[in-house]
Amino acid sequence: MAFGWMAQQLVPLGKALATSDHASVVSINLFVALICGCIVIGHLLEERRWMNESITALVIGVCTGVLILLTTKGKSSHIFIFSEDLFFIYLLPPIIFNAGFQVKKKQFFRNFMTIMLFGAVGTLISFFIIFFGAIALLRNMDIGSLDIGDFLAIGAIFSATDSVCTLQQVLNQDETPFLYSLVFGEGVVNDATSVVLFNAIQNFDHAHVDAIIILKIVADFGYLFLSSTLLGAFGGLLSAYIIKKLYIGRHSTNREVALMILMAYLSYMLTALLNLSGILAVFFCGIVMSHYTWHNVTECSRVTTKHAFATLSFIAETFLFLYVGMDVLDIEKWKFVSNSPGKSLSVSSILLGLVLVGRAAFVFPLSFLSNLTKNSPHERIIFKQQVTIWWAGLMRGAVSIALAYNQFTRSGHTELRGNAIMITSTITIVLFSTVVFGLVTKPLVSFLLPHSAKHLSSMSSEPSSPQSLLSSLLEHGRGSEVDGGGEILTRPSSLRMLLSKPTHTVHYYWRKLDDAFMRPVFGGRGFVPFSPGSPTEQSLQGRI
Amino acid sequence: MAFGWMAQQLVPLGKALATSDHASVVSINLFVALICGCIVIGHLLEERRWMNESITALVIGVCTGVLILLTTKGKSSHIFIFSEDLFFIYLLPPIIFNAGFQVKKKQFFRNFMTIMLFGAVGTLISFFIIFFGAIALLRNMDIGSLDIGDFLAIGAIFSATDSVCTLQQVLNQDETPFLYSLVFGEGVVNDATSVVLFNAIQNFDHAHVDAIIILKIVADFGYLFLSSTLLGAFGGLLSAYIIKKLYIGRHSTNREVALMILMAYLSYMLTALLNLSGILAVFFCGIVMSHYTWHNVTECSRVTTKHAFATLSFIAETFLFLYVGMDVLDIEKWKFVSNSPGKSLSVSSILLGLVLVGRAAFVFPLSFLSNLTKNSPHERIIFKQQVTIWWAGLMRGAVSIALAYNQFTRSGHTELRGNAIMITSTITIVLFSTVVFGLVTKPLVSFLLPHSAKHLSSMSSEPSSPQSLLSSLLEHGRGSEVDGGGEILTRPSSLRMLLSKPTHTVHYYWRKLDDAFMRPVFGGRGFVPFSPGSPTEQSLQGRI
Repeated sequence: MAFGWMAQQLVPLGKALATSDHASVVSINLFVALICGCIVIGHLLEERRWMNESITALVIGVCTGVLILLTTKGKSSHIFIFSEDLFFIYLLPPIIFNAGFQVKKKQFFRNFMTIMLFGAVGTLISFFIIFFGAIALLRNMDIGSLDIGDFLAIGAIFSATDSVCTLQQVLNQDETPFLYSLVFGEGVVNDATSVVLFNAIQNFDHAHVDAIIILKIVADFGYLFLSSTLLGAFGGLLSAYIIKKLYIGRHSTNREVALMILMAYLSYMLTALLNLSGILAVFFCGIVMSHYTWHNVTECSRVTTKHAFATLSFIAETFLFLYVGMDVLDIEKWKFVSNSPGKSLSVSSILLGLVLVGRAAFVFPLSFLSNLTKNSPHERIIFKQQVTIWWAGLMRGAVSIALAYNQFTRSGHTELRGNAIMITSTITIVLFSTVVFGLVTKPLVSFLLPHSAKHLSSMSSEPSSPQSLLSSLLEHGRGSEVDGGGEILTRPSSLRMLLSKPTHTVHYYWRKLDDAFMRPVFGGRGFVPFSPGSPTEQSLQGRI
Repeated sequence: MAFGWMAQQLVPLGKALATSDHASVVSINLFVALICGCIVIGHLLEERRWMNESITALVIGVCTGVLILLTTKGKSSHIFIFSEDLFFIYLLPPIIFNAGFQVKKKQFFRNFMTIMLFGAVGTLISFFIIFFGAIALLRNMDIGSLDIGDFLAIGAIFSATDSVCTLQQVLNQDETPFLYSLVFGEGVVNDATSVVLFNAIQNFDHAHVDAIIILKIVADFGYLFLSSTLLGAFGGLLSAYIIKKLYIGRHSTNREVALMILMAYLSYMLTALLNLSGILAVFFCGIVMSHYTWHNVTECSRVTTKHAFATLSFIAETFLFLYVGMDVLDIEKWKFVSNSPGKSLSVSSILLGLVLVGRAAFVFPLSFLSNLTKNSPHERIIFKQQVTIWWAGLMRGAVSIALAYNQFTRSGHTELRGNAIMITSTITIVLFSTVVFGLVTKPLVSFLLPHSAKHLSSMSSEPSSPQSLLSSLLEHGRGSEVDGGGEILTRPSSLRMLLSKPTHTVHYYWRKLDDAFMRPVFGGRGFVPFSPGSPTEQSLQGRI
């Protein structure tokens, strides 16, 4: 992830670029107008449950691409050149941060080991299968010069799922909390794993692949994962501590919100300084902020942060799919493959097959492994759920596109036939998997899991439910903060329960630490002192 | 305003910039951390009423500048090079939009003519006085080569007040609504006038100045003002219409918020396409959105938009003052004046004197003119208020700095002695006026206006008071939307009243149009149908 454009942006421009001003202003206007269009059309299509926002944005993007292609007489179909910097710096952080901020933490941490198994080990399995499969099947086809590094990159590119973006609209966090937390959590860890993997591949010497190097990559990944998580958690805890200690909301709601946004951004940017994974850091920063900081701020700030973060994430997602849609018709890449359309199609089919196999190869075995450690039957992943997990993670999205552009183009352009075919194949797979798999997922889920029980109570402590918090406030007056204490009492009541559920032990000790030390220091649900003049007091007296 | 950097930013970088990556990541981290520091320290100093956030940020900026100067051993004091693009594209729009969104509209429109008189005519008077004064007093001093274009630019640079930023903390919208709306409204119109003036000066031929050219500039300004206002209002109305017509909040609060942000940004960017004033457009877009759109959205979206826009504006302001503080010690400019420190000081003093005189020369005469048109004595601007208006608009800020950099530097650097002196003088004046005048303003206002009556009722319909809206909701159940009708009934009840208050006639007819046509079509307070399933319904049923 290069941050060089920031340096550029902050340096005044010479007169040399004055000629391109008008064009870029037109593009920005067009893009903003298109996003508005996506929002309105997405709203109108909301009733049709098989559609989702991503597909709407994709289709609008393709239509606009056709229009631009006709207007420019076949010269170009898109108005921006794709930049992975734009993606990694502007679009991904709000999406991932919001994911962490809105995730149901209880489910996430309860399934933490399974999520890590799927996200890290599973991605590695998928990577190796796609890598070896691609070498075996594509090497003998006449598709230009691809070396071992390219094949390794192909493995990483097609191991990156896009569950974060698409799943929001397919699985429901309230209806199937267990599945949602698995697929969603896997998606986040997968994002981090595939990016780390891709960077490792680009840096190491392909001539000498041995066990030590592979061990080194694994160790690197472990270090990255731990330190990024700690950095993100530290950022979140610091914001919680400052806001709790200083009662910042007493003077200004804006300061609280500003502090939360800036601390999250700071923990993301610090990873760039320390060469860590920004995605992981910002994800865990979001989790910590929703667990501690969010409970320390005024009611206004709670509503504001919840919706402001979700809105930013929503805009970023829409922009992304719109762009991918427009990029589909990029004439420059298609003309390389126009003389052999069958070849591009067969490459795409082969890769899509590898994606399907690669995912199946880890979902079913790892589910089996995971089930071995669970004692109670309702905690196991049943076969129907395994199929859902397998299917829901088949979508490939913006991360794949960004990595493919990084590997196979130079400044968004390519001159080599093999590279062009890889780019068009990536676009084909992203489009096909998002639209076709995406459309099928909803009926499939309702077929496989017709009456998914509501596992979790509706009274959760996540930021995703300030509605319930305030509705209870409207009904019971000032009871909401007192209610918070109720959750603390739901800990395992006997030693027998603890012994029968060993996987819960870590969770239980974490809860003890949380109640005894973390929450008194950093605040959190039910642990913000309810004294006159405190933010909680003021917020209840009509500050909302 | 050049938008070229956007083109740059969206194009992937070559490898050439890879060396600067690390430095820019460090700068961004430092800057974000500093803004966090400003927020925390500003909060701690809140009790001392003579301090304000701007001064805190300035002081922290200067301290950081000293540290960087020491660290880099006197090579540089700042980490970014000032870019007027950054200012005009990132920082100014949220500040101005939020200003329009939070302004008390009733007061603003009641004093519309006076505000326009002060903002447009007053700025022109101030411009001419500083222009002629600078020619008369500075031409014979040995300060390098300054041509007539430079002197015209000096007039525009020092006519741009900074009331928008600093006043927020000095005058209180609730305590002195009349004065606040005057000074604040003047500040916004002044921003637009001085930028338009500056652009006009840069474009026209200085050799042939005659009446026709001046008339043309005035006509240009009128056209710009009208069309920009209409564009902004159109953007606001469109968002109101879409959200009202489609009940977007029914499915997603995020869509509403996203639509509001994007429409505001779109109306700002469209002005760049049509060569209009973005500042005016986004200001009136903010006003229209707070009058119509804001009442059509769910309660969640109201709280979110109100605080999110205020937070963005707050961050932008803090960044600005922090930057100005760091830029003070820019060694490159000071070394030009180091051999004649007295000269730079005397230039600054002369210009500061001209600023004082130039403002006095329009505040008192125009107040007299304005008073002639008012019949009732309590609508007139009394002498003490005139002194307050004069004083409160003396601060010079970021607009002056941005214009000075645009005129006297090339890519942030300068080689000419005259230009360097003008830059250092601008910085001196901005610093002196912000800190010294800023510190004096608060005691002065409380000395001049010791018991400022609360003119306006507390039950206003602006977004700045969702507190009262929700507290009334908590008390009276669902009465809030019905209460809104009460305001409509406060129209002048007899023809006699109309004739005795001619200045209110326009306002009255606007209210009639608003009630009869605008609000039924575009929504607004009390005009959103309260039917089951509507956003209002849902929001009251515990969606907050």
